[in-house]
Amino acid sequence: VLTKRIAVLPGDGIGPEVCTEALKVLEAVSERFGHQFELDVQLMGACAIDATGDPLPESTLQACFEADAILLGAIGDPKYDNNPAAKVRPEQGLLRLRKSLGLFANIRPVTAYDVLIEHSPLKADRIAGVDMVIYRELTGGIYFGEKGRTADGAFDNCFYSKEEIVRISHLAFKAATTRRNKLTLVDKANVLESSRLWREVVQQIAPEYPSVEVDYLFVDNAAMQMILNPKQFDVILTENMFGDIISDEASVIAGSLGLLPSASVGETAALFEPIHGSYPQAKGKGIANPIATILSVGMMLEHFELYDEANLVKEAVDYALKRNVLTPELNKEKPFTTEQVGCFIADYV
Amino acid sequence: VLTKRIAVLPGDGIGPEVCTEALKVLEAVSERFGHQFELDVQLMGACAIDATGDPLPESTLQACFEADAILLGAIGDPKYDNNPAAKVRPEQGLLRLRKSLGLFANIRPVTAYDVLIEHSPLKADRIAGVDMVIYRELTGGIYFGEKGRTADGAFDNCFYSKEEIVRISHLAFKAATTRRNKLTLVDKANVLESSRLWREVVQQIAPEYPSVEVDYLFVDNAAMQMILNPKQFDVILTENMFGDIISDEASVIAGSLGLLPSASVGETAALFEPIHGSYPQAKGKGIANPIATILSVGMMLEHFELYDEANLVKEAVDYALKRNVLTPELNKEKPFTTEQVGCFIADYV
Ligand SMILES: CC(C)[C@H](C(=O)O)[C@@H](O)C(=O)O
Ligand SMILES: CC(C)[C@H](C(=O)O)[C@@H](O)C(=O)O
Repeated sequence: VLTKRIAVLPGDGIGPEVCTEALKVLEAVSERFGHQFELDVQLMGACAIDATGDPLPESTLQACFEADAILLGAIGDPKYDNNPAAKVRPEQGLLRLRKSLGLFANIRPVTAYDVLIEHSPLKADRIAGVDMVIYRELTGGIYFGEKGRTADGAFDNCFYSKEEIVRISHLAFKAATTRRNKLTLVDKANVLESSRLWREVVQQIAPEYPSVEVDYLFVDNAAMQMILNPKQFDVILTENMFGDIISDEASVIAGSLGLLPSASVGETAALFEPIHGSYPQAKGKGIANPIATILSVGMMLEHFELYDEANLVKEAVDYALKRNVLTPELNKEKPFTTEQVGCFIADYV
Repeated sequence: VLTKRIAVLPGDGIGPEVCTEALKVLEAVSERFGHQFELDVQLMGACAIDATGDPLPESTLQACFEADAILLGAIGDPKYDNNPAAKVRPEQGLLRLRKSLGLFANIRPVTAYDVLIEHSPLKADRIAGVDMVIYRELTGGIYFGEKGRTADGAFDNCFYSKEEIVRISHLAFKAATTRRNKLTLVDKANVLESSRLWREVVQQIAPEYPSVEVDYLFVDNAAMQMILNPKQFDVILTENMFGDIISDEASVIAGSLGLLPSASVGETAALFEPIHGSYPQAKGKGIANPIATILSVGMMLEHFELYDEANLVKEAVDYALKRNVLTPELNKEKPFTTEQVGCFIADYV
């Protein structure tokens, strides 16, 4: 029996709805196993800008520092998207949160669920059995380098220190040893100096994990291979910008964005969130799929080393998939609402 | 009747084989229409390193400057790929060629051929009717920014001047007006300052092309949409690195890399090449698909404003597709060789 403090950042759009359902499942786990989860709900994103002028208010950051883990719904609002001049954006809050908490590794499992294969844009034989996990560096690279304007242009600098590459590489290699022992580094070492450093570091570390077979792919080729033959991948390791692109691309394999959870971890902090966005058009309609957020809670339980609890959550989700208790994008004929899916999974637990 | 001077750079791997076939087709066009094409064959890539120590020897560059157009096969050799320490690489030759000749726009049409839909990893209903063209900036951005090492790390700078964005944007907008009047800018304006400049410039230029509907997509979302719903795209405009990734990803739609041509153009120079690589494992086996290079010759003819000639080449390729006169990756049962496919298409012309 465990007591954990969780900062909850429902965010914008469908974020609050999917968080509500995920918290029902967490509550069910707590009842069944007798754990205590203390929730501290805070503002972040566009809603925080509207309320305080700041996408990541000091009190939110404080709550995150004090928590054992963070659950995030989604952030973002179209009113900020097509306005290059907007000085304050929801995304800044997210980037600052990642940086402040040192969440240097974003971890995204991508699995093709048999029952959903028909929903994927890819042919069944290409994706049946896909089971990969992407390790994306999250607090370095071009996201956080110096950026600005000159008299006639604009620039963004991409910098990586050796240490930034070393620490996430160890996480990725360790993950590979618990899986199929294959690691693919995705880079652009034929063009970028920073990518050549990534390759050097990974080559240096590789002998510490003799069971792991290491493969190197240029990012353009990786973007093709992800669709042509995604089964070849076990653990993918890559830098921030390439990881952003490749992991969103990989998400199409699953047949719905609404199914994919993610974890972002650092030395001490850990944040869990669905990979989908705030999907403002769907807000309040009861059509948002809560499963990605529920599986994010599952990843949180794993992080707490509550493996039975985590497996039960996954089992409950599998059951909902098998029984077709799913929101409209996956069940056109007899769709369930966000709340019904959440309750079904929580009840199972 | 026309006289044109063409620099031919067969390059490495399967490059020479596919060039040979494409030149047969060019020769057929010349016989049928009475044009004169003067060929100047030169070394570039790994073969040029082996012969001269330089992937782009001075004589090759000179020949390119003097030509009306350049035909490139493919460059690259695995012995340079996994060696981050290699000081001289084939790719450097290509990058220097692009920069020296000012080839600032890479243009890649992506079409789903009905007869090949079964070969695509994507489901038929997603790709039937796909018809897009990607405009990738080719001489700026992180490819050509300052790069180097520091005491503890490595960096690559991404810089864009307004003018670099303006000139390719006009090309892309003009292309849109001759097509379905839709332009999608792919960027990462929620994170990168250079992307915000791209958005500003495109927003400024848009009113000059009132018939064109402009759309903005973040590159991570674009990487998903490319697979989920590629039919939505008409003209895609993007910067160098994103274009490298997105255009290779888009190539899977066609069902074979062996079908896709490209043009790289500047104020005066123009280079035509298949999008596939040098595929060294296939070298000399007669299994390389020459169609991408043949269609690149088609794009060259269009560039010369020889539209009837270009259309005839496309018609000949369509006929080969219809009659299944195709290399093994597209015709497993009764495969034709590289040479047979080339001769068939040249004979038609
Ligand atoms: C919202 C945006 C800044 C963010 C990113 O690019 O990292 C998002 O796309 C993600 O992947 O979490
Ligand atoms: C070989 C490499 C430098 C090149 C690039 O990245 O531009 C290639 O991938 C391409 O797209 O032509």
